[in-house]
Amino acid sequence: MKVKICIVGCGAIGSIFGAHLARLEDVEVHAYDVSKEQTCAITEHGLRISGAADFTARLHATSDASAIPSCDFGIVATKSTHTRPAIEQTAHIFKTGSAVCSVQNGVGNEEILAQYVPWVIRGTTFPAGHVIEPGHVGFDINGDTWIGPFEPTHTPFSLVEQLAELLNRSGLKVVALKDARGAQWTKLIFNASTNPVGALTLLHHGAATRFAPTGALFNALIAEGEAVAKALGIELHGDPRALVQKGASAPGKHKASMLQDIIARRQTEVDFMNGAIADWGEKTGVPTPLNRALWQLVKGLEHSWTDPS
Amino acid sequence: MKVKICIVGCGAIGSIFGAHLARLEDVEVHAYDVSKEQTCAITEHGLRISGAADFTARLHATSDASAIPSCDFGIVATKSTHTRPAIEQTAHIFKTGSAVCSVQNGVGNEEILAQYVPWVIRGTTFPAGHVIEPGHVGFDINGDTWIGPFEPTHTPFSLVEQLAELLNRSGLKVVALKDARGAQWTKLIFNASTNPVGALTLLHHGAATRFAPTGALFNALIAEGEAVAKALGIELHGDPRALVQKGASAPGKHKASMLQDIIARRQTEVDFMNGAIADWGEKTGVPTPLNRALWQLVKGLEHSWTDPS
Repeated sequence: MKVKICIVGCGAIGSIFGAHLARLEDVEVHAYDVSKEQTCAITEHGLRISGAADFTARLHATSDASAIPSCDFGIVATKSTHTRPAIEQTAHIFKTGSAVCSVQNGVGNEEILAQYVPWVIRGTTFPAGHVIEPGHVGFDINGDTWIGPFEPTHTPFSLVEQLAELLNRSGLKVVALKDARGAQWTKLIFNASTNPVGALTLLHHGAATRFAPTGALFNALIAEGEAVAKALGIELHGDPRALVQKGASAPGKHKASMLQDIIARRQTEVDFMNGAIADWGEKTGVPTPLNRALWQLVKGLEHSWTDPS
Repeated sequence: MKVKICIVGCGAIGSIFGAHLARLEDVEVHAYDVSKEQTCAITEHGLRISGAADFTARLHATSDASAIPSCDFGIVATKSTHTRPAIEQTAHIFKTGSAVCSVQNGVGNEEILAQYVPWVIRGTTFPAGHVIEPGHVGFDINGDTWIGPFEPTHTPFSLVEQLAELLNRSGLKVVALKDARGAQWTKLIFNASTNPVGALTLLHHGAATRFAPTGALFNALIAEGEAVAKALGIELHGDPRALVQKGASAPGKHKASMLQDIIARRQTEVDFMNGAIADWGEKTGVPTPLNRALWQLVKGLEHSWTDPS
């Protein structure tokens, strides 16, 4: 009997995960996305991946969550801002014994998922991609993914290992960890420095890293995040500064996802990045004035789109 | 013999000062501006003021600083970013015995002026206006102005009083103070909260004050500025929060001048606002992480206009 996996949110990252898994003979993939255009294209022509891997996968895709059978695993890949409505629509798919893994940005998504499903897996993923057109996703970077049990739901580690085995066999690079918080916070702290600064200054990642004032602000934000992680007893998985430098030396002018959101006037993930760091800072008594200020500024910028009186 | 006064920088504020003074029979006004369009319009049709006062004044206007005779007073009203080139071009006008008064935003302008002229007057002004067309300025608010000797040049207080008397007789509201730093820092701290937040979020003043996250950021920035002023031994001239509230309850959707600069892609005055507070904070050992961060972000935004690689 095949392992059934539901991809919740079929943007670039969800598509990359779903298409890879769909190549396995022992896996049946159901992709859920609110976009009818995307699900129709996948149903009609399959899901095409180009770049770091080139193939077209056949999988079930739908915008009607009630049409999806019970699944063994869920992989949630929506924007953090859509986690709650996405899991509200799909929670019935995940019965006792199944586990739902977040591969989203920021922290706080697992807490939301755990309000709707019994077992949650904490995930942090570095692959990057972009939607070329409905049904076709550019696979820009085949980065690593770390997954581990979400502590409060006591998810069995055997399920984490099973999901990691499937993903690795499908061509992705996944590490199962007993404690995946270090990897998540390392990416969180990286994102919470580069994303809001890019969004507020309109600078692409390399320029913001090399320009002395914004480069110094990256480091000041990172230092606050590290202090909060330390207070939480989380050992980081490497130095967030190394991620900043690695990104800055990549070719091209990469715009942080939050800058892309700002340009498109989409609500950003700042609540799950700087907002989360500042909130954890308050809970642990660690000062985070800069993360709070960047959160305030991005919220203000979003507010400006409403033409407030 | 008439008192000769040179207005350096004939934008909205310089025009309001110059036109008022030109109505006095015992004053001869020379207006200097780099814009030929502005000086030609003034020469041809006079300088028209509308709003809080309505009149047209006749005065000398030129873009050729060498054509201006020696003057008893200078009033510098350029953007802070243009202080140095403006005084480099006009310093010859101000011989020993004359005094040059800054009525600009921020702090640090007097220090620049003092490198070129013997006596400097520290000024802080609240009138507001806007250029309607060359030779015609809207006089939006007839606010108060405070002037006092710039401490390092030991400017005689009698000159400060003489200039205040002329300005008051001309219809403006000016107070001569032995120590004008309190008024200047009060406006500085107000400006350094509302201006960069408006510039980065695109929110008009009232909206940014009323939106809880940005309103809280205003207060956090103000608290840092107050701590620096206290360390410098400066007693503030009222509460900067009162200026924020007063501005927020004014009708219309007023965009902070720094937001207007950002929209027009003009270099902002952030070096003379948040940059100055953060620099004074470092010198006095007062932490100013937020003023430094806002300075870094605005510098980054300016940098983005260069399309950095």
